[in-house]
Amino acid sequence: MQSSNSSSEERRLEVRKLEISDKNKGFVELLQQLTVCDSVSDKDFEDRFQELSALGNEHVICVVEDDRSGKIIATGSVFIEKKFIRNCGKVGHIEDVVVDSSARGMQLGKKIVDFLTDHAREMGCYKVILDCSVENRGFYEKCGFEHKAIQMAKYFN
Amino acid sequence: MQSSNSSSEERRLEVRKLEISDKNKGFVELLQQLTVCDSVSDKDFEDRFQELSALGNEHVICVVEDDRSGKIIATGSVFIEKKFIRNCGKVGHIEDVVVDSSARGMQLGKKIVDFLTDHAREMGCYKVILDCSVENRGFYEKCGFEHKAIQMAKYFN
Repeated sequence: MQSSNSSSEERRLEVRKLEISDKNKGFVELLQQLTVCDSVSDKDFEDRFQELSALGNEHVICVVEDDRSGKIIATGSVFIEKKFIRNCGKVGHIEDVVVDSSARGMQLGKKIVDFLTDHAREMGCYKVILDCSVENRGFYEKCGFEHKAIQMAKYFN
Repeated sequence: MQSSNSSSEERRLEVRKLEISDKNKGFVELLQQLTVCDSVSDKDFEDRFQELSALGNEHVICVVEDDRSGKIIATGSVFIEKKFIRNCGKVGHIEDVVVDSSARGMQLGKKIVDFLTDHAREMGCYKVILDCSVENRGFYEKCGFEHKAIQMAKYFN
């Protein structure tokens, strides 16, 4: 399902915040395209949703819903870290950006990243950062990001 | 001031959580060795300290105090991100690790990273991550981390 950007706009594929009913619209299945994400029980989903909702603008998850199928076809999140450096500055951390494999070429990834970046700016952050694979560097450069550092990780299980 | 690890242990340079009185022990000046960090007013420091304290174990800043000079000579922070992926998993993000330039060679950096890593593990995270310069990769490998991705950034000012 390839589609030009203009037809994407005609379809009004708007970015909005995650709603609890999105679990029934394929939100978890979409995340499974990103990484390990087994099926989540309604209870676990609701608990985590409420925990994140309680953080308000400090942690925002956004989605794009396909206006034809009713499925969630893109998502991403940003949370705001409060620091002492940079004169008690704040940093936006973008995480878990994914576009449904059937919805590529509609610039939904850029829409998601722009939405999250704008949120970080409005929250008063001095920068927004994210970690990605080397393969995705070009995409994020098109979104106005530049390569700054390397990510190191330690897994517990 | 070079010192062996054994003498460091004799001096009982223990890692503890940040206290509000650490502002008067050179905590902000230490952060200035890391990046841009102008002087912070007592009011701004207290406000940010209280905001972070309210997050409890979700955001921890630790320090090492020099038992001779009474100065803060090492610090680092970790905050816990709650996700939907990895079965509603959690990730620890280590930030702002710095050791006073006069206190290198005492393995304080590793002590700080180990403290923050242990905290993330105890909080149930499936991994802990951080961003660093290429030059610091070897240090974090000694701390048990591996290179996983690249960091992209967008600055607003």
